[in-house]
Amino acid sequence: MAEPANQQAATAAPVDFRTDPTRYKHWKLSIDGPVATLALDVREDGGLRPGYELKLNSYDLGVDIELHDAVQRLRFEHPGVRSVVLTSAKERVFCAGANIRMLSQSSHGWKVNFCKFTNETRNGIEEASAESRQTYIAAVNGPCAGGGYELALAADYILMADDGNTAVSLPEVPLLAVLPGTGGLTRLVDKRKVRRDRADFFCTLEEGIKGKRAVDWRLVDEVVPRTRLNEAVRERAEAIAARSDRPAGAQGIALPELARELDGDSIRYSHVEARIDRAKGIAEITVHGPQAAAPAGIDGIDATFWPLALARELDDLVLHLRTNEENVGMWVFRSQGDADAVAAYDTLLEQHAADWRIREIRLFLKRVLKRIDVSSRSTFALIEPGSCFTGTLLELALAADRSYMLDGQFEGDNRPPATIRLTGLNFGAYPMVNGLSRLQSRNLDDLARVDALRGQIGEDLDAAAADEAGLVTFTPDDIDWEDEVRIAIEERATFSPDALTGMEASLRFGGPETMESKIFARLTAWQNWIFQRPNAVGEQGALKLYGTGQRAVYDRRRV
Amino acid sequence: MAEPANQQAATAAPVDFRTDPTRYKHWKLSIDGPVATLALDVREDGGLRPGYELKLNSYDLGVDIELHDAVQRLRFEHPGVRSVVLTSAKERVFCAGANIRMLSQSSHGWKVNFCKFTNETRNGIEEASAESRQTYIAAVNGPCAGGGYELALAADYILMADDGNTAVSLPEVPLLAVLPGTGGLTRLVDKRKVRRDRADFFCTLEEGIKGKRAVDWRLVDEVVPRTRLNEAVRERAEAIAARSDRPAGAQGIALPELARELDGDSIRYSHVEARIDRAKGIAEITVHGPQAAAPAGIDGIDATFWPLALARELDDLVLHLRTNEENVGMWVFRSQGDADAVAAYDTLLEQHAADWRIREIRLFLKRVLKRIDVSSRSTFALIEPGSCFTGTLLELALAADRSYMLDGQFEGDNRPPATIRLTGLNFGAYPMVNGLSRLQSRNLDDLARVDALRGQIGEDLDAAAADEAGLVTFTPDDIDWEDEVRIAIEERATFSPDALTGMEASLRFGGPETMESKIFARLTAWQNWIFQRPNAVGEQGALKLYGTGQRAVYDRRRV
Repeated sequence: MAEPANQQAATAAPVDFRTDPTRYKHWKLSIDGPVATLALDVREDGGLRPGYELKLNSYDLGVDIELHDAVQRLRFEHPGVRSVVLTSAKERVFCAGANIRMLSQSSHGWKVNFCKFTNETRNGIEEASAESRQTYIAAVNGPCAGGGYELALAADYILMADDGNTAVSLPEVPLLAVLPGTGGLTRLVDKRKVRRDRADFFCTLEEGIKGKRAVDWRLVDEVVPRTRLNEAVRERAEAIAARSDRPAGAQGIALPELARELDGDSIRYSHVEARIDRAKGIAEITVHGPQAAAPAGIDGIDATFWPLALARELDDLVLHLRTNEENVGMWVFRSQGDADAVAAYDTLLEQHAADWRIREIRLFLKRVLKRIDVSSRSTFALIEPGSCFTGTLLELALAADRSYMLDGQFEGDNRPPATIRLTGLNFGAYPMVNGLSRLQSRNLDDLARVDALRGQIGEDLDAAAADEAGLVTFTPDDIDWEDEVRIAIEERATFSPDALTGMEASLRFGGPETMESKIFARLTAWQNWIFQRPNAVGEQGALKLYGTGQRAVYDRRRV
Repeated sequence: MAEPANQQAATAAPVDFRTDPTRYKHWKLSIDGPVATLALDVREDGGLRPGYELKLNSYDLGVDIELHDAVQRLRFEHPGVRSVVLTSAKERVFCAGANIRMLSQSSHGWKVNFCKFTNETRNGIEEASAESRQTYIAAVNGPCAGGGYELALAADYILMADDGNTAVSLPEVPLLAVLPGTGGLTRLVDKRKVRRDRADFFCTLEEGIKGKRAVDWRLVDEVVPRTRLNEAVRERAEAIAARSDRPAGAQGIALPELARELDGDSIRYSHVEARIDRAKGIAEITVHGPQAAAPAGIDGIDATFWPLALARELDDLVLHLRTNEENVGMWVFRSQGDADAVAAYDTLLEQHAADWRIREIRLFLKRVLKRIDVSSRSTFALIEPGSCFTGTLLELALAADRSYMLDGQFEGDNRPPATIRLTGLNFGAYPMVNGLSRLQSRNLDDLARVDALRGQIGEDLDAAAADEAGLVTFTPDDIDWEDEVRIAIEERATFSPDALTGMEASLRFGGPETMESKIFARLTAWQNWIFQRPNAVGEQGALKLYGTGQRAVYDRRRV
């Protein structure tokens, strides 16, 4: 089946996730003391790809890239902002959700990747409320449908105008034969704890629910007359802001445009680089440790501060590879640098955990690592002489599906054998979507072992010690290395990409579940299934026919 | 796309889930004191449908129907059996898993339904070990691959022969481009707590793992020399049996062939009946309360004991409808009978909870209700005058996606208005796959409300009271009833069956997750997705080409 030309990642211009408020087409960001307002004002002709108009404040990936950027900048650049109002700048609509024509003309892979990114952005909004103490409030000032309501659901508090026009709805099932898959179903029952039978009714209702019933059913927190909405929102935002611990009058950290060189099959940032072998489907990613010693303190840190620069670069790389290199199914992580320098930065991140800037940097690193966890790519880590898989960087090896650590030296290479090192940050600073640290998720059979590992913090562990500690998968010596590693990588490329995606999603997240893990596992998996079903995407499917006036024809068999 | 003729449920003979040991083709059941042995001995030409040979002890639905029957009978008919050895009666193989030709020629729906039933059977094996104290032990006496190993994983303890031939493996990903989807991936990391990177390696290894490494990696519990296997298994089985509380010398409850009349568009059992409207896609299911008063005690109860008969009949009906009526997407539950009689039986089930027979009956009812929860059908309950949604039967209404309760009487009907009634059994006797009672799952926002409901046990709640207690969805009066209920049911039939399946699976299970819920949600959803992907089931897909000598050709894009 031919893909629509405008969604062929290989031929279209690559998607660039870098932007800044001066370039926003779709969002208006304004700041008034401790309250920021993010108003959605989608430019109909501003779609990321041709072929659809972004009517009724509907969104595509481009709209969400700006939202993602705004959420990020509010956290770093605006320490004084303590609450953020999500609203619409349009007169008659809040948001109609993801653009249907965009979805219907997209490839399966594009749809799935788009949903993953939008999910991550909404999870990031919730994290900002909970952990950055920058709390999001939705001010629903017009019809709020599908992905529009899912965006509101990501806020901590939802106010809705009580007028004849404004309602919340999730009409995906009746109208489009797909799910409210950007967290909607999960957040209804697991976050807002809407009673399941009411949720069932609500999700089959094209017109949605408004007014008092929306409050009674917990779909929104409060309805107010349209004329009082702005005032009520402001009151609520200020009350919430008053409870935040974000510093008033502090200097933000500016996030200048990320410098990168994109050059055929290589991508270079200041601390991260990737070489891509498209024929083999492999990206070899090298993360460099700090180029200089860590500063003594955190006064005057800026975007060049190594952990922050690292987070930004890795984040951009992951998003780039996911979106623009879908044939590259295998990411191989290496590191290079000085373990002591990495450890010194980790010490700063530990010692100053209470500082709002360090808090943001740690949360950002957490989000980047989570992005890697939920990426539909096989990930291997290679731990070789000269590497610095220490603390924060060790998380990359722990996140990988497998790690290979050379036992000894390569012939002709006189660098000392590789070691890895635990720091305090490996013990809970960077939880996965299931709420566990990566060390915990490797020790589900005996979590006490994780506590015992604290005794090894700061030790350089060679291959034998790392193996003994359960921190690496395999430790071949130099005679076996070449064959074992090369064959493992090449063999991986021979397996079905889909089967690998399902396998990895199942094995990476043992143990408990959270709302976030449910969104990425259960809800996403069902949505992906439905995105393949003829009833949605076939020639007579609802997603395909939406807007044509033709009625979808369904295969009535229940599966 | 034409379905293979042998899988067209509508035209092939309906699948019958009723069997007994005298008719088994594939399993040998033997009992020696407290230890039973279930030996797999698949008849190659005994497939349920034509078109494939069940080589190497591979299985199809027919093999699993017998296993399901054997597990059930062991629980009810053999109180003295305290441990069950799952093994192979073949000389050179334990079990090669689900038959690949069967899978590759099956429709998508057949594959998914087959996997659901096999999952339920394996979950039932684990429940027998944990709650019936009839503990399963796997004696792996030959290659144990894919679904074969997934069967062993359902056992509490796995012994494996230590010879050159015997290994456990999950080769689905490398060989077939599908998942070990019958719980395999989940049980590896969540039950056996195999380290995730080792599980990753193991699941890409065609040849599997044997001997000491299999023990070190927690894939099996023990390896013993082939010559000692039987002896070691017997020792282990007897040691486990010694710790069971199952009664020695008690009389079992025989499970005679379930009587039913299958007649075009109706199915009748003694307490359950269903009328099917295939054009509308609706099954109207009526459950009848006890025809006579409950006995004073449980002496001499047999398979006619109302709660047990009910469980058997509902179970058979659900399996029948799922497998043989896939176009019937909506199940409408009604009840008829005397609430006091139902309550009296519930009292027996509560008072004698410690009796092994009552324990089995309650567990069976739990399993049947769970089957309804995970069925990919929309379920509505209609609560009308003359109904008896009391206690155990109220669970049907609580399991439904929605319930409608008539407020008042129908014109010309002088029966008193409908009431519902809680009994002690609504408070934990029948947990869902997520471990919550259905009352808890309706009150996720305030679980304390469930405790408060205990105060209403035994009260007849009319529509207003039931609504106030949050036990029903809607309570129309007789003027609105016809339109509201009819429209809701007919409208449901206009939605995409796939979207409904994904929606229901998401909304029914708010709150915590268990291994079981992860299997039905995450793992199943991914497997269903993969079962649609061309890389598995396309003309050049691995599942399609398996055994032809041709190599699968994969679309290399990662989704």
